[in-house]
Amino acid sequence: MKHYSKQTRILTAIDCIIFGFDGREIKLLLIKRGFEPEKGKWSLMGGFVQPDEALEQAATRILMQLTGLSGVYMEQVHAFGDLNRDPVERTISIIYFALVDIHKYEKQISEDYHAEWFPLKKFPRLIFDHERMVQMAKEKLQYKAAFHPILFELLPEKFTLPQLHSLYEDIFNASLDKRNFSRKIHSAKLLIKLKEKEKENSKKGAYYFKIDKKKYKSIFYSVFNFIPNPDTHK
Amino acid sequence: MKHYSKQTRILTAIDCIIFGFDGREIKLLLIKRGFEPEKGKWSLMGGFVQPDEALEQAATRILMQLTGLSGVYMEQVHAFGDLNRDPVERTISIIYFALVDIHKYEKQISEDYHAEWFPLKKFPRLIFDHERMVQMAKEKLQYKAAFHPILFELLPEKFTLPQLHSLYEDIFNASLDKRNFSRKIHSAKLLIKLKEKEKENSKKGAYYFKIDKKKYKSIFYSVFNFIPNPDTHK
Repeated sequence: MKHYSKQTRILTAIDCIIFGFDGREIKLLLIKRGFEPEKGKWSLMGGFVQPDEALEQAATRILMQLTGLSGVYMEQVHAFGDLNRDPVERTISIIYFALVDIHKYEKQISEDYHAEWFPLKKFPRLIFDHERMVQMAKEKLQYKAAFHPILFELLPEKFTLPQLHSLYEDIFNASLDKRNFSRKIHSAKLLIKLKEKEKENSKKGAYYFKIDKKKYKSIFYSVFNFIPNPDTHK
Repeated sequence: MKHYSKQTRILTAIDCIIFGFDGREIKLLLIKRGFEPEKGKWSLMGGFVQPDEALEQAATRILMQLTGLSGVYMEQVHAFGDLNRDPVERTISIIYFALVDIHKYEKQISEDYHAEWFPLKKFPRLIFDHERMVQMAKEKLQYKAAFHPILFELLPEKFTLPQLHSLYEDIFNASLDKRNFSRKIHSAKLLIKLKEKEKENSKKGAYYFKIDKKKYKSIFYSVFNFIPNPDTHK
């Protein structure tokens, strides 16, 4: 196996881009880095891949250690491998995005882990190439959300149509016609209307909905166009 | 930098999934592996990342060395990192897809490099996890092609609408209504009609078209829904 023994071995890390939705806008979870270099600066959650871990296992462990989160939706986005992206030693970083319902974890994350949520539209400077990582994770989320009902991972158990509409507008950074959106969403037959209304944001109130979980699973992997109105995206 | 020095370094490879289009169907370029283990078996084009190479540089070099191809469209797809995916030693493989116009390179590839094109719908057994890699590259191509005019990289300088239609049907594995397809493609204003006709496949003939290169570049990175008729994809 001469071919193998002559080759270079490279440090491999995982960085996690954690997206949350608070009912109005998409947010990003950041921590202050705990070791040198760049100690104390804002950073994605990251760590090195261990010898006995597959990549997904490493991502799950790192998320758990740094935020206490488990069982959340995660997906690999990209490998970053520029020679000098880490000043200490060449490190390839493989990035994952995670989608969480902010309200479910808000208290735990901020009290136990000193992590903070920032609006995806306005967050502080990040170390290394972490800002490019966030950008790429956002693009991947757009692709996925266009075909799969993935954004529901960001919503609480029950939610209103205006909340869902805000979520789609925010992730596609576009203004989406409300009637068209509502028609497309209903034609997917994914939602179950509840009897209860949310009345904080308007006098008339907005009905709560929940996901039809069976339906959700069955259509998740089919190619399905979820962009409510493509013509508004040019 | 104690934190770094204690970590494990891992072999890193690149594997390339090379897609081509021959006017009728999508094809996949494969070679017989030149070293142990699995020497002589069908494989993707691969090689190890060198210490002085960024990932994209390694992918470009490997493609050039094994096929003679250069200047083709390449894009990273995914990192595969299961512990035992390579029986010799743990190796993380980062995969790229490449899109080429088959006719442009047909002779050079088969004569000088002993590589072979197989239909994407029916190709031989591949080593390791290379079949999963092909599947994932195909999915990524579908996502990209839904938003960007990326499939034009697979077409020759001039092509007919029936060819373009076949290409989209083949990659989405769906039957697309011809009139709707034609309307969507023309509304993108990407094509320039030529005076010449292709007459091999019908008496009436089909006009050749070429891409408006300026337009192509300017819309490439905008979010644009290129699925001709999403409702046929359920």
